[in-house]
Amino acid sequence: MTFEATLRRTAEEVEAVLDRLLSFDGAPASRVVDAMRYAVLGDGKRLRPFFVVETSRLLGVEPAYALRTGAAVECVHCYSLVHDDLPAMDDDDLRRGRPTVHIAFDEATAILAGDGLLTYAFEILGDEATHPSPAVRAELVSALAGAAGAAGMVGGQMLDLEAEKAPVGFDEIVTLQNLKTGRLFRFSCEAGAILAESGADDRSALGTYADRIGLAFQIADDLLDEEGDTAEIGKRAGKDSEAGKATFVSLLGIDAARRKAEELVEEACAALDGYGRAAETLCEAARFIVRRRK
Amino acid sequence: MTFEATLRRTAEEVEAVLDRLLSFDGAPASRVVDAMRYAVLGDGKRLRPFFVVETSRLLGVEPAYALRTGAAVECVHCYSLVHDDLPAMDDDDLRRGRPTVHIAFDEATAILAGDGLLTYAFEILGDEATHPSPAVRAELVSALAGAAGAAGMVGGQMLDLEAEKAPVGFDEIVTLQNLKTGRLFRFSCEAGAILAESGADDRSALGTYADRIGLAFQIADDLLDEEGDTAEIGKRAGKDSEAGKATFVSLLGIDAARRKAEELVEEACAALDGYGRAAETLCEAARFIVRRRK
Repeated sequence: MTFEATLRRTAEEVEAVLDRLLSFDGAPASRVVDAMRYAVLGDGKRLRPFFVVETSRLLGVEPAYALRTGAAVECVHCYSLVHDDLPAMDDDDLRRGRPTVHIAFDEATAILAGDGLLTYAFEILGDEATHPSPAVRAELVSALAGAAGAAGMVGGQMLDLEAEKAPVGFDEIVTLQNLKTGRLFRFSCEAGAILAESGADDRSALGTYADRIGLAFQIADDLLDEEGDTAEIGKRAGKDSEAGKATFVSLLGIDAARRKAEELVEEACAALDGYGRAAETLCEAARFIVRRRK
Repeated sequence: MTFEATLRRTAEEVEAVLDRLLSFDGAPASRVVDAMRYAVLGDGKRLRPFFVVETSRLLGVEPAYALRTGAAVECVHCYSLVHDDLPAMDDDDLRRGRPTVHIAFDEATAILAGDGLLTYAFEILGDEATHPSPAVRAELVSALAGAAGAAGMVGGQMLDLEAEKAPVGFDEIVTLQNLKTGRLFRFSCEAGAILAESGADDRSALGTYADRIGLAFQIADDLLDEEGDTAEIGKRAGKDSEAGKATFVSLLGIDAARRKAEELVEEACAALDGYGRAAETLCEAARFIVRRRK
């Protein structure tokens, strides 16, 4: 099976779990539930859940636990997109080739749908169905909250908004992107080790892998923003460079940015050397991240 | 000590814990942290934490655990105020007698500060310092997420926005308010039983108490909105009736609404009969809720 086929199969499994989890039968406020479903369901690469599922597979975790944990991460990722797209934030009206939530519904509903998804991620993780050990569930909650909060993703989005107003250099972009996207990738990769109740060695190897692919992912995103076209990537291309925002590409140039991304992929794969061929899919995932066209 | 003095003393203890918890030393995105602190710290009755602390005291829980759990609930309560005050939602510029977060900072920062506070509540609950038993921590997370999410507070705010467009009756207002404010009160009262690892009897008694005071609180709020003045209550008075929104007062009339609130207080106190004098402070809290002037 090609890597793309493996990714697609996992995405379908994640989609089915999300569809079931987001069916709040009899919920009185159906509009916000509709908006939550609109924000999450449909085509998405489900990259973060994929990393939860693959690191879990590597360490022998029950697939059902990994899928629920992956669904929780995806809820956090999708909430962040809904809020980032709001007029007061990045003011985007297109996402995955469809109107963003505040366009398809309205701003108030989009804010609430985001809040609902963020909250639901923790409800999923706290539930016994995610793992029989409450210690594992509590650790997943702490780790996801740390990755998503003010010292993580929320802080990264704040820095990103501030970066539009003042010039930033390479180190600041690395910090910003590590918070904004890296921390959630890192959680996704460490989740396998948490679910497997693994020791420090697994956590360290997966953490290094995650840090490298997180940065590679963002460099690849900047390259896509520079080189892609709107129809293909499903959101407005060229937006960052139009806005005069510093990106890895504007700071390094296209060629050096591409080389840097490829170096990071090699480092990511090297971090998993100890697992031998069992880690091949994760290594392919790292390569996929920099070659994807959307 | 009068009840007001007891409430104030607990509020001071909660404030100290919140101040410490909201000190993210060295966090790179200081603006969002400043906004989170602005949203939470300062004078507040800290009613929800008070119920966590008092139900915990009733059941012999270590006060430090109750204070951290109370701080988590207050983070959720304050995030909901920040988001509800946004222009796209209730569009309020005054809260606790001060400019709301999106006025004092800006809309994007207010959205992020709310997101950060909601996330942080779960980080607090997931942490070992909140309770040594991971099963207790996981249950707190599940219960708070259920109370705050689309089938709870977020759903209630959605219904509230929809109620501005279509007339609603008494039963719908009860459902709406139960979701919007009742569920978080209920969590606050049940938290003591969760922290104490209590059985079904305590949970049932505290749940009944919580349901009654939650509804009484909202009726009292509607009475204040009708009768209070802006300077005293610290937010714009008369807003709901101006907007033509159905409230308990508009549906029942002032006198019947007041009688209903007092009946609910008696039922709340009766639910705690089994605890004898140990529950006296909780009973006074129920009475306070309907006599408060802000």
